[in-house]
Amino acid sequence: MKLAKPLRLSVKVVIRDKNNNCLVLRRSAKSRGNPGKWDFPGGKVDFGEQFDQTLFREVKEETGLSIRIKGVLGTTQSESPKAKFVYVIMEAELKSGRVQLSSEHEEFQWVKISELPEIDLAEQFKSFARMYAAQQQEVINSK
Amino acid sequence: MKLAKPLRLSVKVVIRDKNNNCLVLRRSAKSRGNPGKWDFPGGKVDFGEQFDQTLFREVKEETGLSIRIKGVLGTTQSESPKAKFVYVIMEAELKSGRVQLSSEHEEFQWVKISELPEIDLAEQFKSFARMYAAQQQEVINSK
Repeated sequence: MKLAKPLRLSVKVVIRDKNNNCLVLRRSAKSRGNPGKWDFPGGKVDFGEQFDQTLFREVKEETGLSIRIKGVLGTTQSESPKAKFVYVIMEAELKSGRVQLSSEHEEFQWVKISELPEIDLAEQFKSFARMYAAQQQEVINSK
Repeated sequence: MKLAKPLRLSVKVVIRDKNNNCLVLRRSAKSRGNPGKWDFPGGKVDFGEQFDQTLFREVKEETGLSIRIKGVLGTTQSESPKAKFVYVIMEAELKSGRVQLSSEHEEFQWVKISELPEIDLAEQFKSFARMYAAQQQEVINSK
């Protein structure tokens, strides 16, 4: 078995507050990947790290928030000249805290899930955002 | 941030041959989880193991096949009394080899993707199988 490029795993989290808004972070203009684009909290699973440890570590580093993980929402992928990236997108609810950004991001906002597809997300999250917003609309309509 | 149960990651692979059939393995009647159910090759990401190493290792152990990874198809999840499991489902094409089962499985078959939803898959893969079969049908219809 051979991969043309190494495959790397990232975990991303859609954090929802009580009003059903979700947190997005704007990547620094100096980022190597997707500078200035909107992103979800999360990051690469480091060598020797369990998947759930990555979630704990990255959410803490990037937002300072305390969250409760609900489950998995989907996957997406991207490719750089050197590697392929697989993203697992989880869903979580906000427990407590106020957002404190790291140097990786320069802005944040809580957006309505229905408006997620309209913001300037990194390319690999656009189709996920449309699907997620549509699903949420179905949940609302069925109530 | 707290999880009620630890979160564990599994990688599963839909291996397709030249005729667009895909490989499923029947779990041993003595399996702790889902005995006798049909399953995809793959398994848990071990502590200290990279995601792509898990794919190499598990496909080799369970099938003996040589494959080429194409990308990610989706995610699903399940829960046991002690943990929650997140499955990342990848897609691969068969390069070479003949299936040689390990003691974990007692039977295998290459099935048409359109027939995947009809076989007795482990519960956590049923909705994925319906979605995947429907997508494939769309690809065929659009040609």
